Amino acid sequence: MSQALSGIKVIDVASVLAGPYATMLLGDMGANVIKIEPPIGDMMRKSPPFIGGESAYYIYANRNKRGMRLNLKTAEGKEVLFDLVKDADIFIENWKPPTKRSLGIDYSVVQKINPKLIYCSISGFGQSGPWAERPGFDQIAQGMAGLMSVTGFTEPTRVGVAIGDSIASLFATYGILCALIEREKSGKGQFIETSLLEGLISVLGFQAAKYFGTKEIPSMQGNDHAAFSPYGTYKTKDGHINIAAGNEKMWLKLCELLEINELIQDSMFNTMEARVSNKDKLKEILECKLAKRTSAEWIEILNNGGIACGPIYSIDEVFNDEHVLHRKMLLETTHSLAGKIEMIGFPVKMKRTPCKINYPPPVFNEHTEEILKEIGYNDEKIVDLKRKEII
Amino acid sequence: MSQALSGIKVIDVASVLAGPYATMLLGDMGANVIKIEPPIGDMMRKSPPFIGGESAYYIYANRNKRGMRLNLKTAEGKEVLFDLVKDADIFIENWKPPTKRSLGIDYSVVQKINPKLIYCSISGFGQSGPWAERPGFDQIAQGMAGLMSVTGFTEPTRVGVAIGDSIASLFATYGILCALIEREKSGKGQFIETSLLEGLISVLGFQAAKYFGTKEIPSMQGNDHAAFSPYGTYKTKDGHINIAAGNEKMWLKLCELLEINELIQDSMFNTMEARVSNKDKLKEILECKLAKRTSAEWIEILNNGGIACGPIYSIDEVFNDEHVLHRKMLLETTHSLAGKIEMIGFPVKMKRTPCKINYPPPVFNEHTEEILKEIGYNDEKIVDLKRKEII
Repeated sequence: MSQALSGIKVIDVASVLAGPYATMLLGDMGANVIKIEPPIGDMMRKSPPFIGGESAYYIYANRNKRGMRLNLKTAEGKEVLFDLVKDADIFIENWKPPTKRSLGIDYSVVQKINPKLIYCSISGFGQSGPWAERPGFDQIAQGMAGLMSVTGFTEPTRVGVAIGDSIASLFATYGILCALIEREKSGKGQFIETSLLEGLISVLGFQAAKYFGTKEIPSMQGNDHAAFSPYGTYKTKDGHINIAAGNEKMWLKLCELLEINELIQDSMFNTMEARVSNKDKLKEILECKLAKRTSAEWIEILNNGGIACGPIYSIDEVFNDEHVLHRKMLLETTHSLAGKIEMIGFPVKMKRTPCKINYPPPVFNEHTEEILKEIGYNDEKIVDLKRKEII
Repeated sequence: MSQALSGIKVIDVASVLAGPYATMLLGDMGANVIKIEPPIGDMMRKSPPFIGGESAYYIYANRNKRGMRLNLKTAEGKEVLFDLVKDADIFIENWKPPTKRSLGIDYSVVQKINPKLIYCSISGFGQSGPWAERPGFDQIAQGMAGLMSVTGFTEPTRVGVAIGDSIASLFATYGILCALIEREKSGKGQFIETSLLEGLISVLGFQAAKYFGTKEIPSMQGNDHAAFSPYGTYKTKDGHINIAAGNEKMWLKLCELLEINELIQDSMFNTMEARVSNKDKLKEILECKLAKRTSAEWIEILNNGGIACGPIYSIDEVFNDEHVLHRKMLLETTHSLAGKIEMIGFPVKMKRTPCKINYPPPVFNEHTEEILKEIGYNDEKIVDLKRKEII
């Protein structure tokens, strides 16, 4: 069965996470993704832990690609890249501006070879402005975007995953796909770009809205919500659960199920505003009742009553949960070095053209010859490029 | 100038955040987004703070849409929806399954009216499986996806923005755009879906990779990185900065700039692994040196030396930063009730077909008549629908 992006050719010279995750999303939809790695390989390949010698982190972000080695620091290596780009639809890089200059590869160069190409740059801070030349990492972006300042209890807290990279990947993919759609009409490619910083700023949501609306500086949120209550993390007999009683109906039902109907008329709790103002007192009352049963029991009881309630899972619990498995969020495939590997499933379910695993993550240099033969390189040329250590 | 999604018609019956943010992303690219709200309005309109009577949170997620009131609980209201859907490209909803059943509107119904329609459902946990019928909120998804278990210091911590909603929006947009591209070839629409839970699981990144690779349960990350050091938050003379010396070159330069060259040969610190093992001791040494200057001074000095380093901004600092402003991440427009409003800029820069503000967020019921006239409804019909309180 054909997939949504079958026939779309992607040249990916990006490394680490934001670029590779974006091209994996394209590959998951059937695009023909060619991952080009320098002679030392994607830096991510060096990141422990390893499964059969392959980095688990590399595996995470590189399925559905074929991989090739190419030394872009040589003139002949660049020629190979330009040959690959000739009939490509998308080119994606996350080079820093100085790298781009020293390689002599940028949009102005590549568009001459293929004016229909959609060229996407992902960076820490964007291609212009005072921070453009600075090295960008997820940690820096999380701090600079304000995300750390609203996360945590008493000190600014980094989200425990590289959320800046992931969100930049998603915005890059959005831009690339919009440019592809536009190209159907105009016949023209274009340059697009996004960054970790801009992506994270864009998802500040309620915190930015609150600041724009009041000019008050949003503070660290802890595990409660600034506008709703009860909405947060609560202690039970054997652990913690999340409860999100985001509307009046849920609140009334919660009072019934916890046998605290007297609060319904209590002026300290009878409106959402009052409950938010007195949320600490309310938490005390709720936790006193919640102490009577286990988290698992409350999750059943409250959800059966229509109240949003859920567990706080560790990572192993996530991938052992019946619902998560039902949703096929854990997949297995076979990797030539690592053997049987697990990976995260597809978050978007396409009914008619589903995502699938066409390729496990490539071992270094796995498809170099195959890819070059597809663009017409003969054995002699390939041997010559190998001898010169271009490929 | 035409935009990337000019001519694409989107019918949006979603509310609150995940759905509306997705359709805003389509609107930012020029799509014709029609936001349909029930007679009581999108629940988000009730969320404080208010600017000139309009919710700041509603404003955040609803630019580049025209808005109409429509009572879908009536047969005639549904007829209006079906008329709107006839020539639409995309339909997006975030109804819970029981709501869908009681309204009698789902993909099987709508595809009969328009087989080319791309129909997207966004939910808390997905359309099938044991959790499908349960109410989903960002807080619940953050807990269940394992994100809270790796964020924070001593207790699981919620990210201080509705990151589950935003990521679901981005995945939904990715699915919708892929389906549009596929439709160019097949001529067929399809049903696609994503959820807050599945989106968040998909961005677990290093934490999931580590678990798959080792079966060890990832712990709370605090502000340090599990695989790199120095990489985290460090105290200076007047506050905190983030430093991400993610490679050997940055480490050597950092030793030079902080005048701690003796560490380069020290077996406690001379490899990345050693530094990760001794990161607390290393932090102590670094903070002793960093105490000599202010955050702003170190940010300049370290970045000039090629070391990734940045501020930990509060939300007001984000929107006053010179670089953020240079990147046009703060925009202004005029809203008919709220007057001059600020909003977050466009994270993706499209060179040839840039994003722009075509419409400020609609006031309730603003474009109902205009939209119905576009699909051929005459004044008489519109007056009749109003009289019956359908619109």
